[in-house]
Amino acid sequence: MADAGVAYPPGRVILRDVTLRDGLQMTRNWPTTAGKRALIAALHDAGLRHVEVGSFLPADRMPQFSDVRQVIDTLADRPGMHGVALALNERGAHDALATDVAEITVVISASEAHNRANARRSQAESLAALAQVAALRDSLRPGAIINAGIAMAFGCSIQGAVDQGAVLHLAERCLDAGADMVGLADTVGHAGPRQIASAARAMEGLCGARPWVLHLHDTRGLGLANAAAGLDHGCRVLDGALGGLGGCPFAPGAAGNIVLEDLAFLAAQMGIQTGIDLHALIAARGVLADALPDAPLQGALARAGLPLTEAIAAPSDLHTATN
Amino acid sequence: MADAGVAYPPGRVILRDVTLRDGLQMTRNWPTTAGKRALIAALHDAGLRHVEVGSFLPADRMPQFSDVRQVIDTLADRPGMHGVALALNERGAHDALATDVAEITVVISASEAHNRANARRSQAESLAALAQVAALRDSLRPGAIINAGIAMAFGCSIQGAVDQGAVLHLAERCLDAGADMVGLADTVGHAGPRQIASAARAMEGLCGARPWVLHLHDTRGLGLANAAAGLDHGCRVLDGALGGLGGCPFAPGAAGNIVLEDLAFLAAQMGIQTGIDLHALIAARGVLADALPDAPLQGALARAGLPLTEAIAAPSDLHTATN
Repeated sequence: MADAGVAYPPGRVILRDVTLRDGLQMTRNWPTTAGKRALIAALHDAGLRHVEVGSFLPADRMPQFSDVRQVIDTLADRPGMHGVALALNERGAHDALATDVAEITVVISASEAHNRANARRSQAESLAALAQVAALRDSLRPGAIINAGIAMAFGCSIQGAVDQGAVLHLAERCLDAGADMVGLADTVGHAGPRQIASAARAMEGLCGARPWVLHLHDTRGLGLANAAAGLDHGCRVLDGALGGLGGCPFAPGAAGNIVLEDLAFLAAQMGIQTGIDLHALIAARGVLADALPDAPLQGALARAGLPLTEAIAAPSDLHTATN
Repeated sequence: MADAGVAYPPGRVILRDVTLRDGLQMTRNWPTTAGKRALIAALHDAGLRHVEVGSFLPADRMPQFSDVRQVIDTLADRPGMHGVALALNERGAHDALATDVAEITVVISASEAHNRANARRSQAESLAALAQVAALRDSLRPGAIINAGIAMAFGCSIQGAVDQGAVLHLAERCLDAGADMVGLADTVGHAGPRQIASAARAMEGLCGARPWVLHLHDTRGLGLANAAAGLDHGCRVLDGALGGLGGCPFAPGAAGNIVLEDLAFLAAQMGIQTGIDLHALIAARGVLADALPDAPLQGALARAGLPLTEAIAAPSDLHTATN
């Protein structure tokens, strides 16, 4: 078991960038390795310290992640940068553990139907695989964090409603299986803010001092309302992608992840310190646009600019204190 | 003094459509009167009962509202439909009082600088004008509701931060001047959810059983997060425009009002009955697209469709009970 509390110190709200993994999950175009490296540098300059960098999947299925090892290697040049990579199975986790990536996300679905469609096995089999990944970690690289990412945690595009009690029970079983932390993902944008608030309170009860991740998509426009509810109810690790990257390539303009820069603005407006410089984050969006010229970037803050309230734009000294 | 509690019964959350007024405020194209009539019919079919129908302004300055009287006349064909028109000054209010429009919004700005730029007079002069409008109402049509809409209530594009205590004091002075209700407008999208929550609690203290309106723009992406905070803290009258109409015509894609259909979905996801049929509301969006083919319609729900959770799509019997 690894201690996720070092990478996610208690009492700090941490926004993670998932542009280079979830943002590219369904894309047909992706940045070069140099472009990914430039983006990571820009995110670091903006104060981000937690980035998803790719997936360990067969390169013939997901060529956008074929350079995941090189991308992980570039993180060493950026002090304090915490990399996260996704693994769908034991093989992927084994490959990830052979690198220096700090955290490995293993996906399991809250919906049995989606778990079978996505991973081609049952939830019970996915839980057994998670236990094997945790055991592998214990033997190969005990410091690596295993995060169990629970997809469809607030509703499923196949089965519809998802029972919160069942999700909590699954989260508990993931921790029992050896995960160091758990994430709840609103994969297809079914959640509403009161559902998030209720889940957040329950997760706090389950996880105690351990961090847990809220991974929201903006499919139906409620992404930031849900993020605000999470922040109001104790969630302190949230994911977002620059420009909301991660929509379906077959539906231009369809919303994917919540927009990282709008999420950072939300946190600032709520008086929550994240260590992120909003101006620099908007600049990072420009780096993404250079690296991926056809990316359909969404987001309101970059379009409208910061408001005339100086408190928002104040630089933070969080990182100088902790990194 | 009119009783706003009839049009806005206590204990009910009411979403108002502002497409035909605020949605057209800065447009260079607008629907024909027949198109506006078709839109009002579609909104009524979707369960909406509160609609902004236009402004009383000189037709040479705002030709999009030159048919406001005919639009008001069409409301009589739609049982239970409550029309709202905007007036910038005593002359406009006088003209509005000569029609059957149920409610007249008189605008005053929370920022002295913006009030002078927008209305070319001081806040004190605008308050005096509001008192004159209320007196005019008392003599001409005592049943007409006067709503004092406070622009820039959460931040101003000219002066920056706006003090909440000053806004509350201004709201109180508006009620003292004869307004039946007050609205707080985040005109340029400066607010965050905790600011809204705090203002909502204070407004409840000030207004008691009287309704007050939360009028949000989505300029920086926080519109629905702010709406959720309002709903969580006692606000029960919220404005939105189909497709978020109302952005700047010179900035394609710039967000205007919060998207009405996404707002209605938010309320449904929060377990709040509004009497709105989401499928029919999405159909109304199509009527708007027919009436205004070049309108840059935003919004996630119409693009993504309703989730597979049957509770959301259930028709409501609120209107059969109350209208």
